[in-house]
Amino acid sequence: MVGFMNEEAFRRTVETGFATFYSRSRNKLWMKGESSGHRLVVKEISTDCDKDALLVKVEAIGPGVCHDGYQSCFYRRLENGAWVVSEPRAYDPDAVYGGKA
Amino acid sequence: MVGFMNEEAFRRTVETGFATFYSRSRNKLWMKGESSGHRLVVKEISTDCDKDALLVKVEAIGPGVCHDGYQSCFYRRLENGAWVVSEPRAYDPDAVYGGKA
Repeated sequence: MVGFMNEEAFRRTVETGFATFYSRSRNKLWMKGESSGHRLVVKEISTDCDKDALLVKVEAIGPGVCHDGYQSCFYRRLENGAWVVSEPRAYDPDAVYGGKA
Repeated sequence: MVGFMNEEAFRRTVETGFATFYSRSRNKLWMKGESSGHRLVVKEISTDCDKDALLVKVEAIGPGVCHDGYQSCFYRRLENGAWVVSEPRAYDPDAVYGGKA
């Protein structure tokens, strides 16, 4: 998954060991998995050459990271010019998010 | 590495098979490796649930992807609160970029 962290989200990620983001649409911090239980346990954090991106390696708790019900958010692959779903659904998002996903 | 693609960069990436980006600071398209030779041969492209990010899996031509001389741009790892270089330099960026990196 790709998410936005501000400084506070980064600090909480490091302190708690659970990946935490900042929602720019809802203007609030959110720990990934706070409603679904699908938390991300941080294993390693790297930053890139210009220090404006983080690569956070995690152990994912639960069947999937994506709120659409897939293991990965990157569940569509380009094939002959079209986006094709490339993995089976890992869980039912309605059952987990109650239609709020 | 992380880079920005606009629609034209995405189209050229698909058509040429080499990862191509759009520089928002220089306002121009750039094929990764156009000066260094370190091109990225596209193997697979996926997009995420909200379709605002691409994951491009590549075969990297040359010793390193990062203009700082490392195999990966994510060459600094967080260790006890400090960023520590976590891999050896793969090439001399001055020799490749001639001090223009």
